[in-house]
Amino acid sequence: MFEKVLQEIYKESKLQPKIGEIATYIPELANVNPDKFGISLLTLDGEEINLGDANERFSIQSISKPLTLSLAFTFLGEKIWERVGVEPSGSPFNSLVQLEYEKGIPRNPFINAGALVIADILVTHLKNPKTNFINFLREISDINTLDYDLSVAKSEASTGFRNIALANFLKSFGNITNNVDEVLDFYFHQCSISMSCSELNKVFYFFANEGVTLNGKEILNRSQIKRMNALMQSCGFYDESGEFTYRVGLPGKSGVGGGIVAMLPKKFIVSTWSPRLNSNGNSELGMFALEQLTTKTGMSIF
Amino acid sequence: MFEKVLQEIYKESKLQPKIGEIATYIPELANVNPDKFGISLLTLDGEEINLGDANERFSIQSISKPLTLSLAFTFLGEKIWERVGVEPSGSPFNSLVQLEYEKGIPRNPFINAGALVIADILVTHLKNPKTNFINFLREISDINTLDYDLSVAKSEASTGFRNIALANFLKSFGNITNNVDEVLDFYFHQCSISMSCSELNKVFYFFANEGVTLNGKEILNRSQIKRMNALMQSCGFYDESGEFTYRVGLPGKSGVGGGIVAMLPKKFIVSTWSPRLNSNGNSELGMFALEQLTTKTGMSIF
Amino acid sequence: MFEKVLQEIYKESKLQPKIGEIATYIPELANVNPDKFGISLLTLDGEEINLGDANERFSIQSISKPLTLSLAFTFLGEKIWERVGVEPSGSPFNSLVQLEYEKGIPRNPFINAGALVIADILVTHLKNPKTNFINFLREISDINTLDYDLSVAKSEASTGFRNIALANFLKSFGNITNNVDEVLDFYFHQCSISMSCSELNKVFYFFANEGVTLNGKEILNRSQIKRMNALMQSCGFYDESGEFTYRVGLPGKSGVGGGIVAMLPKKFIVSTWSPRLNSNGNSELGMFALEQLTTKTGMSIF
Amino acid sequence: MFEKVLQEIYKESKLQPKIGEIATYIPELANVNPDKFGISLLTLDGEEINLGDANERFSIQSISKPLTLSLAFTFLGEKIWERVGVEPSGSPFNSLVQLEYEKGIPRNPFINAGALVIADILVTHLKNPKTNFINFLREISDINTLDYDLSVAKSEASTGFRNIALANFLKSFGNITNNVDEVLDFYFHQCSISMSCSELNKVFYFFANEGVTLNGKEILNRSQIKRMNALMQSCGFYDESGEFTYRVGLPGKSGVGGGIVAMLPKKFIVSTWSPRLNSNGNSELGMFALEQLTTKTGMSIF
Repeated sequence: MFEKVLQEIYKESKLQPKIGEIATYIPELANVNPDKFGISLLTLDGEEINLGDANERFSIQSISKPLTLSLAFTFLGEKIWERVGVEPSGSPFNSLVQLEYEKGIPRNPFINAGALVIADILVTHLKNPKTNFINFLREISDINTLDYDLSVAKSEASTGFRNIALANFLKSFGNITNNVDEVLDFYFHQCSISMSCSELNKVFYFFANEGVTLNGKEILNRSQIKRMNALMQSCGFYDESGEFTYRVGLPGKSGVGGGIVAMLPKKFIVSTWSPRLNSNGNSELGMFALEQLTTKTGMSIF
Repeated sequence: MFEKVLQEIYKESKLQPKIGEIATYIPELANVNPDKFGISLLTLDGEEINLGDANERFSIQSISKPLTLSLAFTFLGEKIWERVGVEPSGSPFNSLVQLEYEKGIPRNPFINAGALVIADILVTHLKNPKTNFINFLREISDINTLDYDLSVAKSEASTGFRNIALANFLKSFGNITNNVDEVLDFYFHQCSISMSCSELNKVFYFFANEGVTLNGKEILNRSQIKRMNALMQSCGFYDESGEFTYRVGLPGKSGVGGGIVAMLPKKFIVSTWSPRLNSNGNSELGMFALEQLTTKTGMSIF
Repeated sequence: MFEKVLQEIYKESKLQPKIGEIATYIPELANVNPDKFGISLLTLDGEEINLGDANERFSIQSISKPLTLSLAFTFLGEKIWERVGVEPSGSPFNSLVQLEYEKGIPRNPFINAGALVIADILVTHLKNPKTNFINFLREISDINTLDYDLSVAKSEASTGFRNIALANFLKSFGNITNNVDEVLDFYFHQCSISMSCSELNKVFYFFANEGVTLNGKEILNRSQIKRMNALMQSCGFYDESGEFTYRVGLPGKSGVGGGIVAMLPKKFIVSTWSPRLNSNGNSELGMFALEQLTTKTGMSIF
Repeated sequence: MFEKVLQEIYKESKLQPKIGEIATYIPELANVNPDKFGISLLTLDGEEINLGDANERFSIQSISKPLTLSLAFTFLGEKIWERVGVEPSGSPFNSLVQLEYEKGIPRNPFINAGALVIADILVTHLKNPKTNFINFLREISDINTLDYDLSVAKSEASTGFRNIALANFLKSFGNITNNVDEVLDFYFHQCSISMSCSELNKVFYFFANEGVTLNGKEILNRSQIKRMNALMQSCGFYDESGEFTYRVGLPGKSGVGGGIVAMLPKKFIVSTWSPRLNSNGNSELGMFALEQLTTKTGMSIF
């Protein structure tokens, strides 16, 4: 059913002018071919379509955030919101301003400050945080080759002054409870994971499938997973979340590696990868392709 | 199908502790009985349920904003976004701060500044703005008694210093093109309209019904109305839009008169009225009832 | 004693590149010859030096603010600080941001919001505010031709949307007690007064002379006038007060008409006029000339 | 000449109600007796008066900042302002907000961010930064026992998350050029130095004496030292600089250890110590005593 429309969108996308800049703040991201483009769609009925570079891995970066959040949510449930909010930030993803005005409670779990608080929670609740987390991703997807890219993680650690600043700032407010360096190490690793579009769909399957993974494990219940999706809708695209909601109308999450994952609950998951980013840090071509998808099919949450 | 669950929710709601304060900034709002509570649901199949004070009129206030926006959108289409944004504000509804940082372009059409810009657009495009607008509402709903409450409008004009400030501030940036007083007069009138929950559902019917009103008029096309709904989702509840999305999971709009209207596209529209407001200016009990509705039925957009 | 050094500075100033833009927000200011330049110095010993256009009148604009403040201070004394602060603002002169964060208490009496509060105080305490104020200036200077420029005042009233916004914003916080329009009318008039550099020195004489005017009237006592001077030092040059303090080292006040008045307490008063403004709204050449004066003579408060 | 008035002020000060809280963020500051009070005045004529605990050492903290600034100014001169501003901040001393809005250029050298930039400059220009700096202080004062308090420095390093955040934030903007940890180590040490009121006067002597130390060394020329004094006037008391200027009318610098140093150029230097701080982090009793001094003697810069 989606084959034809996706082929069409893929072709149109390839004809778009090449707009936007690749993320360059670490060498590993800067070395990527900016013209890569992949799109992958997986329906809950089992239909799967992969086009272009849909099977090539890239750095998922912030797309890891709904995954760490969901895992932390299994530990703390609604108590998690004592340490992080659920409101869109209206500020860039790495801003310290709002954090200061709001006394160390990040606006939401998808801005960097919020994700650092979530990382702190996982460092508290996991015995071997890095090992346990990657194993969690392998188990829910049956993709045993998923792994951290250690050169990316190392590179982020040596240049991530803004994130180091954020973590210490949170610590000054008491909203990091573990050793700052340990939390940062976990955070830099979670961002370094590589996946392909096709793999992202399998890992994120449970968000579209009422909390149940492709291999039948229930991660969160129906009511809980709705809340995770609601958060992606409100806050998944930095200070462009409203624009994505307006244009695309699906909950989702983007990363500065150029990836986007989005989903229509109970129907499908779709991932795109194109490294050229707009000024808000979201993939230019990915947003175009996803807008085409919901416009042509009329399938959005609205 | 909804009768039983709504009865249940109505009963539970009436048992909730009485939390929140009634809006008092104009005498007309302050005089309302704070314990009023109504809930009305209308499905696209034609089922209608009215409970409590569902047929008593109240001041719709900001609930008028999606209506003026939709009408302005029929005139300007996507060009409207040159004058107002689509992002959640992260600030109180009547804040001037963001407006200054962003050079007179309001964050979205549902904060007061944005609604004033929309009012300015209607003053430009309508021959007799106030008459034309109320007639528009009558025509789409077949409720010919809909009207402005002139004492409310007058009261807002004489005490609305913050709104007068906002309008002049916008004018200083060139984002009000008509006479400031004329725009304010229209704005104070649109906020003064009275409707009951049951009437709100009929007026807002086209948002749930792919752009087509209860009496068969197409106001906006399917793609356009999705965008209006997306905006209500992102920005409909001031700086609590994320919270409403998280808890309720439906696009909607609230007003300081205590009303809320929300909808599940293609399924139903639901309105609540309870004048006690939480600190963000949204109806405490209304949010509770709507959260119960989506939790109990599992029917939300996520 | 100052004749030679002032001649020197005057010549050097005339050779400076013509930098900066004339204020254009009202036609009356835009019509001024941007190359006008005058400098006038008056010592407490009675020496007076006038160079260039020192005897030509121009619109004093914000230079009126220490005058209204001093008059209001005679009515309220230290109680005045319940309604306005004494801290530099770190923001542009017409910003609304800080006002919102600080709940309607302007940072200091020299930003527009603060001057509007002072205007409100005068409207409360003067029987015929405009008449009484201009008479006050005539009496302390013996210059009976001082007057409002009604075309400037009218022009500001019809284009001063930002000030109208500020006044209504203050009113919404309860920090304007009189009718908003009456306060604005007074404010637009105080800014419209015309004086020459030479006249400014005579009017401001009491700031340098421990509170006593040129014709021997004590306006404020020694301790009080020190506080007025301290305020000019901290806050007299919008968000460039630190720069002026750093470069010039004298308390003073600037206006967008291109005038600056500054003083070395117990020694002299000096005024300059050059309509070209830097990006902070201060006279480019005036600041240059005054920096030369304190550097060449070594006479500053530091 | 000052003996009698200082005795008077000392007595009155001791009778004041005990207001304010001692700084507690590191144990070394929290352990100080909050009722300590010393005042020391040194005139350029050689008169010296020491009252109360004027000879007891305390942690000078931020009072070190004009000293590092002056030393850095000997290396870079006016070029220093490419990396830090001269404007009052209008924000708390350790705020990150303004830094973000202004792209990593701290508002002035006396807020923590600015002092970190100055520390970075000294780390660049000094061979053995810590040794060289303490030697500089010993040389200008002939007090060879001046030294770092290593337990204070260590304590600040282990709890100074906000300063670590600031330094990394500056580094992310490129405005720290050396290794972040090395700069922080220098900064924590400069703040840990102990001096008595009497010693502070000797060390700060050159600020009052046109750039020449008590033992005759010229650190900065007359014009340069005026600029240092101007900066202390504008920015020496965090977001209370206007208040200090208004009430006291002398350039000066405070520290959270409870010390204040102030000076009337060409006349005298005065230091006070009282550990109870007001909500802006300035010594409550110190400000009272200094206000009394300038009010009673009529000796201020205004």
